[in-house]
Amino acid sequence: MEAIDTLIHARWVIPVEPAGTVLEDFSLAVRDGRIVDLLPAAAARARYQAATVVELPEHALIPGLVNAHTHAAMSLFRGLADDLPLMEWLGKHIWPAESRWVRAEFVRDGTLLAVAEMLRGGTTCFNDMYFFPDEAAFAATQAHIRAVVGLILIDFPTAWAGNAEDYLHKGLEVHDQLRHNPLLHTAFAPHAPYTVSDAPLERVSVLAEELDIPVHMHVHETAHEVQQSLAERGERPLARLHRLGLVSPRLLAVHMTQVEEEDLRLLAEAGASVAHCPESNLKLASGFCPVQRLADAGINVALGTDGAASNNDLDLLGEMRTAALLAKGVAGDATAVSAADALRMATLNGARALGLEEEIGSLVPGKAADAVAVRLSDLETEPVYHPLSQLVYANVRDRVSDVWVAGRHVLKEGVLTTLDAPALVARAREWGRRIGAANSGR
Amino acid sequence: MEAIDTLIHARWVIPVEPAGTVLEDFSLAVRDGRIVDLLPAAAARARYQAATVVELPEHALIPGLVNAHTHAAMSLFRGLADDLPLMEWLGKHIWPAESRWVRAEFVRDGTLLAVAEMLRGGTTCFNDMYFFPDEAAFAATQAHIRAVVGLILIDFPTAWAGNAEDYLHKGLEVHDQLRHNPLLHTAFAPHAPYTVSDAPLERVSVLAEELDIPVHMHVHETAHEVQQSLAERGERPLARLHRLGLVSPRLLAVHMTQVEEEDLRLLAEAGASVAHCPESNLKLASGFCPVQRLADAGINVALGTDGAASNNDLDLLGEMRTAALLAKGVAGDATAVSAADALRMATLNGARALGLEEEIGSLVPGKAADAVAVRLSDLETEPVYHPLSQLVYANVRDRVSDVWVAGRHVLKEGVLTTLDAPALVARAREWGRRIGAANSGR
Repeated sequence: MEAIDTLIHARWVIPVEPAGTVLEDFSLAVRDGRIVDLLPAAAARARYQAATVVELPEHALIPGLVNAHTHAAMSLFRGLADDLPLMEWLGKHIWPAESRWVRAEFVRDGTLLAVAEMLRGGTTCFNDMYFFPDEAAFAATQAHIRAVVGLILIDFPTAWAGNAEDYLHKGLEVHDQLRHNPLLHTAFAPHAPYTVSDAPLERVSVLAEELDIPVHMHVHETAHEVQQSLAERGERPLARLHRLGLVSPRLLAVHMTQVEEEDLRLLAEAGASVAHCPESNLKLASGFCPVQRLADAGINVALGTDGAASNNDLDLLGEMRTAALLAKGVAGDATAVSAADALRMATLNGARALGLEEEIGSLVPGKAADAVAVRLSDLETEPVYHPLSQLVYANVRDRVSDVWVAGRHVLKEGVLTTLDAPALVARAREWGRRIGAANSGR
Repeated sequence: MEAIDTLIHARWVIPVEPAGTVLEDFSLAVRDGRIVDLLPAAAARARYQAATVVELPEHALIPGLVNAHTHAAMSLFRGLADDLPLMEWLGKHIWPAESRWVRAEFVRDGTLLAVAEMLRGGTTCFNDMYFFPDEAAFAATQAHIRAVVGLILIDFPTAWAGNAEDYLHKGLEVHDQLRHNPLLHTAFAPHAPYTVSDAPLERVSVLAEELDIPVHMHVHETAHEVQQSLAERGERPLARLHRLGLVSPRLLAVHMTQVEEEDLRLLAEAGASVAHCPESNLKLASGFCPVQRLADAGINVALGTDGAASNNDLDLLGEMRTAALLAKGVAGDATAVSAADALRMATLNGARALGLEEEIGSLVPGKAADAVAVRLSDLETEPVYHPLSQLVYANVRDRVSDVWVAGRHVLKEGVLTTLDAPALVARAREWGRRIGAANSGR
């Protein structure tokens, strides 16, 4: 018998690679935070002596989900202002609230609330873009969740930084601090083409290549953004980014609701990725990202929730469902974005978009043991003809029972082991009271 | 002190009427299955002596949800065949499966599974269309859920009936059986314009007026349906129904993804209702129902899940969320279908579509005590700035804690009191084994 740390026996294992595979009565063997084997349960019981054995007789075991775009700390603004036109939402509610409230403590508490929600919902890695990324990193470390911390950059001053130079300087400091953290990575996060000028974007282009880290940016979120760029600069935002050297395999273009053939070509030729955020795009009436067209062009499409202020949850399983359903409506084709495609978007495609495909995104020996168990035995999920269908189409967020990040059991039968959920709720309520009182008095 | 049966104290009560109202620390007083009062909690505690007092200090209390279109028994086909083109889905999977499996026992077991899911998710009334409506009625009675049982009618023979005359005869028998049942109602349910010929539709038109019951029918589900009717009959399906006398306040037209000005006018002038099924429309790539345009034209729009084979859940809270999000995307307007609008669609508009607006759909004294408590105190739903936003936008199906139908406490702290959930799951698995084995061998 070979000694390992953890042996997880599951009714079904959906490893994402090879595509569409569903293994029945399989086991995942974990040692030192890594997957060492994936094999039939009977063979696993004979071969491995594990310190911890977990039985999941009614569950599907899947790779940890990768939330490819969020603003985690904005969970504290969840539901603050809904059903409003985009510019009123931003100008009268979100930006004033950010200006008033976003400080280190806010980002720490908001990110803690967000990572608790994400872990409970099966997300084991998130790609964040927000002010005070050092605080987001602190929260992620406390939760033991994997994160790509965005080194934010925007033309106007905030409590985090005063100008482009300052943003870049502080961002690089955060990058240096996190360099040896096994769970944390960084990406440049210039906010959007319309909020960052050419000079800092050119700097980002050079630095991202030097440091070999992703560039995480809102691109073509709305038709208005594209029209404005055409009117003011005579070029589409993506064409401008290309001119500035940013359209590369490192680019993760978030939203992309506006896609012309020229955009498809630029993204495909560069090997860039797109982060699709269907619920945010719907809620803000931003437009429809043509996911199947992007995929058909060979573009890697990942999946994100966006922030809780425009969603209003950080439920990537639910986002998978919305993505699979909406893609069919948008393509006019019920075969667009299958259940297997949606799961791949939420796992392996996200990992690839973040440059982490060698580390996470599928249940393959050698990769980190980031895994999620979803119970499929309730009356809401029976009968089970195809576990993949049930996982994607039957609204299962609250059926996530167990989560491992780098082999550590961070959600155990529904209970967070690294975070104090009641304390987080109490803090969130306290922030809610303060922010709500100020907002209603505005 | 006045003696009553039940007094429910809730942190928030959202009565749906008046529109958009959220009452804080209010109480619902119930006697003999009816709402007798809705008043501030302090006053309620002073005025009423209740046999049962329920405290909901972290919950929103809302009217029971009305699922305006489903095929409940199809829960046993949940996930049987997904990601397929509509005609292949129907022709190679659903119709053969129905032909092989749909018998009285199937409908009883499938409807029991469905009503259990619906009650756990806050649905207290459903409008059903399926074969063996007598069995659906039996299941609804056992669960103590309110239902409008569809008297199905279709041109081709099934295990339920052999021809139009037989369908109508059997349907009228069911109507007579249920006439004095306080929780059960009936509607004529001619399947669709393309599956029922003129003569039986004319009979339905006359009978529905005589009996004063709704006509529940799929109408304009796809562009193909409209094109085919134009090619074969030279008129749009809705125009044909109008010619046959069916477009009236009793008509509940399900789907309506294809809407011309002429259709708007016919529906609005007649005072007919539409049942919007956004998730099914997306999943089958049927098209987008222009909900905001219908509402702006004064048409009553209710909300349905459709059957579990094309959704794949019967989660009307989730359907509210999808409806509110999708309407914004389709209208290109983030103010389309607000949270309050979505809740109204799922409650009062559904009641009106079924001719039950005097009985259910809002928490108003005199109406039946159909009510649902949703817990908003978890980290996934904090902070709470606007309970209505949280309810609609934060994916809350599993936060439904308590449900009352006609004053009876049918879901108590998450546990069904009228149904044996483990037994239902066991039955569903047994059906799943039989159906799955046959389907994979086809």
